[in-house]
Amino acid sequence: MAAIRPLFVVAGIGNAAGTGAAAARTFSKAGYSVALLARRQGSLDALAAELKGSGGDAASFCMPSYTPKDFNSTFSAIRSHFPDSKYSLRAALWNVGFAVWKPFLQVTPEEVQESLDTNVSAAFAFSREAILRFKRNTVDAENPARGTLIFTGATASTRGNTMTSAFAIGKFGARALSQSLAKEFGKDDIHVAHAIIDGQIMTGSALDNGQPPSGLSPESIAQSYLYLVNQEKSAWTWELDLRPAHEKW
Amino acid sequence: MAAIRPLFVVAGIGNAAGTGAAAARTFSKAGYSVALLARRQGSLDALAAELKGSGGDAASFCMPSYTPKDFNSTFSAIRSHFPDSKYSLRAALWNVGFAVWKPFLQVTPEEVQESLDTNVSAAFAFSREAILRFKRNTVDAENPARGTLIFTGATASTRGNTMTSAFAIGKFGARALSQSLAKEFGKDDIHVAHAIIDGQIMTGSALDNGQPPSGLSPESIAQSYLYLVNQEKSAWTWELDLRPAHEKW
Amino acid sequence: MAAIRPLFVVAGIGNAAGTGAAAARTFSKAGYSVALLARRQGSLDALAAELKGSGGDAASFCMPSYTPKDFNSTFSAIRSHFPDSKYSLRAALWNVGFAVWKPFLQVTPEEVQESLDTNVSAAFAFSREAILRFKRNTVDAENPARGTLIFTGATASTRGNTMTSAFAIGKFGARALSQSLAKEFGKDDIHVAHAIIDGQIMTGSALDNGQPPSGLSPESIAQSYLYLVNQEKSAWTWELDLRPAHEKW
Amino acid sequence: MAAIRPLFVVAGIGNAAGTGAAAARTFSKAGYSVALLARRQGSLDALAAELKGSGGDAASFCMPSYTPKDFNSTFSAIRSHFPDSKYSLRAALWNVGFAVWKPFLQVTPEEVQESLDTNVSAAFAFSREAILRFKRNTVDAENPARGTLIFTGATASTRGNTMTSAFAIGKFGARALSQSLAKEFGKDDIHVAHAIIDGQIMTGSALDNGQPPSGLSPESIAQSYLYLVNQEKSAWTWELDLRPAHEKW
Repeated sequence: MAAIRPLFVVAGIGNAAGTGAAAARTFSKAGYSVALLARRQGSLDALAAELKGSGGDAASFCMPSYTPKDFNSTFSAIRSHFPDSKYSLRAALWNVGFAVWKPFLQVTPEEVQESLDTNVSAAFAFSREAILRFKRNTVDAENPARGTLIFTGATASTRGNTMTSAFAIGKFGARALSQSLAKEFGKDDIHVAHAIIDGQIMTGSALDNGQPPSGLSPESIAQSYLYLVNQEKSAWTWELDLRPAHEKW
Repeated sequence: MAAIRPLFVVAGIGNAAGTGAAAARTFSKAGYSVALLARRQGSLDALAAELKGSGGDAASFCMPSYTPKDFNSTFSAIRSHFPDSKYSLRAALWNVGFAVWKPFLQVTPEEVQESLDTNVSAAFAFSREAILRFKRNTVDAENPARGTLIFTGATASTRGNTMTSAFAIGKFGARALSQSLAKEFGKDDIHVAHAIIDGQIMTGSALDNGQPPSGLSPESIAQSYLYLVNQEKSAWTWELDLRPAHEKW
Repeated sequence: MAAIRPLFVVAGIGNAAGTGAAAARTFSKAGYSVALLARRQGSLDALAAELKGSGGDAASFCMPSYTPKDFNSTFSAIRSHFPDSKYSLRAALWNVGFAVWKPFLQVTPEEVQESLDTNVSAAFAFSREAILRFKRNTVDAENPARGTLIFTGATASTRGNTMTSAFAIGKFGARALSQSLAKEFGKDDIHVAHAIIDGQIMTGSALDNGQPPSGLSPESIAQSYLYLVNQEKSAWTWELDLRPAHEKW
Repeated sequence: MAAIRPLFVVAGIGNAAGTGAAAARTFSKAGYSVALLARRQGSLDALAAELKGSGGDAASFCMPSYTPKDFNSTFSAIRSHFPDSKYSLRAALWNVGFAVWKPFLQVTPEEVQESLDTNVSAAFAFSREAILRFKRNTVDAENPARGTLIFTGATASTRGNTMTSAFAIGKFGARALSQSLAKEFGKDDIHVAHAIIDGQIMTGSALDNGQPPSGLSPESIAQSYLYLVNQEKSAWTWELDLRPAHEKW
């Protein structure tokens, strides 16, 4: 009988230079098959190819939008590609964010809607699919958790500020969701965690913009996510902050 | 020359037995003209009549929905009814809430949308109109603040919980908005405050349901709102909690 | 039968130019007899004389130290001066603070001790005496609360920072105390509140130092304290923040 | 030239069945030499012997008290035993706590003093010695941090409650210290972290008392501490919470 392989689903891949892609690489190296989700084709296929080229197992799923319906059909597609007979979803990362920095009076209704749709509604729908599939898993000595769901948060997850009204409404909302889920599903052996990324993430674009190399490396963040997934069940973390050593805060 | 009369706008009147109506009565007694906003006709006209019957000045504005467009036209209607030549908007209360208590997996996409629309997007649009009109006001010895905008929060504004995922996403979001606004507009002499109502509000329906009379009275909450509006400018509060003396927390 | 007069006890008077003295004046004007406590004679008698000269009723109690023993004997002295037959302690303000801003490695063990003694142990002892005397009070329509105990907090009550290790250990501690007391004694109709003063208080010394007049006026803070004491029992506040309108935070 | 060996100092060993001892074992297995500190001889020597028996390198230091003076001389003794020529202090754990659960009015002045002395002043003194020795370390590719200082926190670190006034004053204080240090010394490549242990730790005594095995295992907590020490420098955590999967919170 073939062993069941752990599967990692990550939503939010961007240009494959940020946290989502780093997490995909980190979990792939750690033995997970990886399902890559994004709204834009962008680097999706290239990243899947890269992971496979490194001996990993990966597939990409480009979604027309982040609606509940699309998440539902995408998770069906994931399940066709990575069937229950061979794969068990054990980790899911919500790494999607719609960031907008603007004075309040310049924020358009469309931006408010986009922030709430992307940062909250989509997170809600993604969480639903992940948790429903986690619930199919059994718990055993090797897999004490049915699954772990991680949210990438930001400074704006806990602090509204002068330029962040439209962003913070979404990030606060996603944090509320993660806390509610952590409390509701802990008793079902499902682990939900929220990481407050309190600083600039050193993606390709940040580096190109001449940012100092003092920000967070996506790889370091990804290591923290792998740690959260591997935490022993008697000591689970809901929330941690992550920031560069030299960050002023 | 006739004196300029202070105007209070309150959104969220319900059955006229709760916080919004109590605030309308309290501000009316304190000398404010009152604009009453709600999505359902319900008790709107009756409350306006009651306020006028008690010697106050009030008008009701039934809104088809809480979209930015409807808030824009409603604030225009308010301004026609209470023109700048005679009235100055000095206080605004966002008292609208869409509460839903359900296990996460039973929450429908429609409820997620409704929570975000009502608790956050509508608050965003209301705040925009209030702040734009506040900005027309001048500051003088008698009116050190251009205006005060108050949000009615809840326990779910700072704590997600097992039954409140769909509610908390909205209430966290509105709190984020209030903090962002407080920071952005304080320098413009506009005061933004957020009250965490941490307990059961004793509205008519709560009383009818046989709730113990140990909850918060809407009148007490309204007194706190009047206090916030009257705070001296050198010591403004962004956030306070309000709960019954005997509440366990 | 003579009416029972409400008594206000305030600890921490300093040079009579700050929050403690402003609160004494405010509560005196509001009809309270006032007991003034401080460790240094300083302006104690002058302030008592000033209050009496304005038609108030006041007495000063200079304490050798802020030990439990000294608070016990001082509250006995207060009770001799303001006997239960004529006075009822209804409000108490802990306004004492030992502030130290220093890099961590420059803080001496004596400063650590002084911060904990003054900011926490002394607050603990003061609270004990106030609550014991509150417990003698009965509750009636006019006095729904047995008493209100207020703590003057600071930015350092909720945020440790680079220069504030020695100060924050004390202010966090006092905040912990206030929250514990609020939860424990609410059911006994005793109200405990904590005010986070988030900005520079405009005392004489601050003004002399050429500080901009943009800080908090002690009188405004005192107004907030009077409001807290008068809050209706169905809607009590444990914590509020107070900062100048133009403060950046 | 002999390689420099990393040293781990842990204060608070108790009966060698709790978090401090588990951390000692975990860090010993990970290659650290270990200095064990406690006020009571208790299991100190037995634990040192156990670590050495397992191939580790350990020494115990029984302290007469947790005063600054005693920490100073104990760290001198540590440095004699583990000299700079061969050892480099890279991790320190403050695991000491004085817990007291009592109604406020039953707390004695001695208990207040003991809580502040043990939970705060002693933590301050321990931190000073650890940071001073960290500052002697250089930073290189293998050791990006000069050192990591971890505090064991508790539920009472962030929430005062009815029975915890005397405990929370100390735990809030230690948390304030940890945050101040994290902010002050991050720029010096010194990492300070605070773990909120939100549940019952399954020490020997808890197990003997018939507690359900649903609490936190000391070993799981220790794994988290090792993770914090190994975090990459671009993504350091100040604070995380740890609680059992099934904990209600």
